[in-house]
Amino acid sequence: MTREELIQQIQEKQSFLCVGLDTDLSKIPQCIIDEAKSHDGEDYIFRALCEFNALIIDATAPYCVAYKPNLAFYEAYGVDGLMAFEATVDYLKEEYPNHFIIADAKRGDIGNTSKMYAKTFFEQYDVDALTVAPYMGEDSVTPFLDYEGKWVILLALTSNKGSQDFQLTPLHTPIIGRWGPGNFKGERLFERVLKTSQQWGNEENMMYVVGATQGKMFEYIRSIAPHHFLLVPGVGAQGGSLEEVCHYGMTKECGLLVNSSRGIIYASNGEDFAEVAAQKAKELQMQMANELKKM
Amino acid sequence: MTREELIQQIQEKQSFLCVGLDTDLSKIPQCIIDEAKSHDGEDYIFRALCEFNALIIDATAPYCVAYKPNLAFYEAYGVDGLMAFEATVDYLKEEYPNHFIIADAKRGDIGNTSKMYAKTFFEQYDVDALTVAPYMGEDSVTPFLDYEGKWVILLALTSNKGSQDFQLTPLHTPIIGRWGPGNFKGERLFERVLKTSQQWGNEENMMYVVGATQGKMFEYIRSIAPHHFLLVPGVGAQGGSLEEVCHYGMTKECGLLVNSSRGIIYASNGEDFAEVAAQKAKELQMQMANELKKM
Repeated sequence: MTREELIQQIQEKQSFLCVGLDTDLSKIPQCIIDEAKSHDGEDYIFRALCEFNALIIDATAPYCVAYKPNLAFYEAYGVDGLMAFEATVDYLKEEYPNHFIIADAKRGDIGNTSKMYAKTFFEQYDVDALTVAPYMGEDSVTPFLDYEGKWVILLALTSNKGSQDFQLTPLHTPIIGRWGPGNFKGERLFERVLKTSQQWGNEENMMYVVGATQGKMFEYIRSIAPHHFLLVPGVGAQGGSLEEVCHYGMTKECGLLVNSSRGIIYASNGEDFAEVAAQKAKELQMQMANELKKM
Repeated sequence: MTREELIQQIQEKQSFLCVGLDTDLSKIPQCIIDEAKSHDGEDYIFRALCEFNALIIDATAPYCVAYKPNLAFYEAYGVDGLMAFEATVDYLKEEYPNHFIIADAKRGDIGNTSKMYAKTFFEQYDVDALTVAPYMGEDSVTPFLDYEGKWVILLALTSNKGSQDFQLTPLHTPIIGRWGPGNFKGERLFERVLKTSQQWGNEENMMYVVGATQGKMFEYIRSIAPHHFLLVPGVGAQGGSLEEVCHYGMTKECGLLVNSSRGIIYASNGEDFAEVAAQKAKELQMQMANELKKM
């Protein structure tokens, strides 16, 4: 999906919601498990994952523009899980071809290996975007940029506590006149990642992950990457504020995809789970429509 | 496998060789493909991957102490590839239980997601070690450290050109007296990763990836991590020197696992591929025995 198409979807739906499909058998409603077992006995995993995802997707599709299955949750069930990931992507592509599909896999390796990952996600599964870790630098990221209409979503400033360990580390800035412990104004690692990676990709094929928990940092990030789309996890279960994210991070073309996973898909674990998920997605969509009006 | 057991294997075999199973159907011998097709027709992929791996393993097992399948190469073939990865790990565990198995997957995500990856690799596949990317910090790494006898191999200073982009970036070091463009002696990012992560794990459950192409940097790394095992890719196809790595990086307990992938498994693509792989592995083992004598 191109940038232009994505912006159009956001405007039509008045939503920049991404629903995270972190589907965990220990958290999905018992009724799904029971139903799957009634068909497949002990081999119920594939059916349960697919059924849950399809019902969540059907319920939330009117209120969101993107889905983000996190590979960790599918890999945990081995071959059955991977088949469920594939089936979910296929279901989305057939039933909801205007939704943007993000494989949240945080890959990245030396050049020839990243090329294999790119082939997997952009040719075989044919998703729109893949999250990528920046630590290994240019040749670990650029193989993902060779696909027309596909996106790298590079980790910049993540939503977790561990973002403080390295991402916020101040870098050495050798500019005379700025020296001394009291007047440090140098960049931090995530800023270097934002700046350097803009030499590899552009606003049409690269987004950045910035956690909703980072609050005012969005203002700063917009001074470095004024037009790039940002994928924003951490609203809801992790405690980020949608209003703050929009206040500091929204651009005139929106420029945001805000993800909620647990806050939507596990909002109820009764038989009404899909209905409640729809309601939670709708609530977020309405807040988003409101934010879009302020643009 | 514990540190003690690994050291014992190295001493017994006089080898610290790790064979990288980056199995790519476009590079394996045609005879393997033809044979697999003669059994399974168009569904030959699983058989071809497994057969190639088993023959490489049988040929090289006497000369190495570890195997390192890189997940990218298996994921590229979807469900068939993942099944071949699983079958290869099972084959190793049954036939060669004293070999250390590294899943090279470079994973890392927020805490609850890393926990899923840990479950996948350390419970389901039950490999000995997993490569992990450090960018997301402590809570993305520690879930992998909760398994007795299992290892995190954290990316520190990788073998690729992109290691210069962020890993070698000098950090701000606010110590009075050291300031000024001419006398910068601060740490670089990979050093911070080495130091900080030593607060999370120890020499019994954490290793570091350091590329063979980094040469003299090993001396520096040993000043920060004197006893940790280092997983060293980049000998062979990527141009690193075994002698240099050993000179600067070897400890009295060896402390090195040196990986070769393409230089062994694709040394010949004729029918003699396994024989040639054995020969290449043996050559490296003999060089390693020589280096171990110098300890």
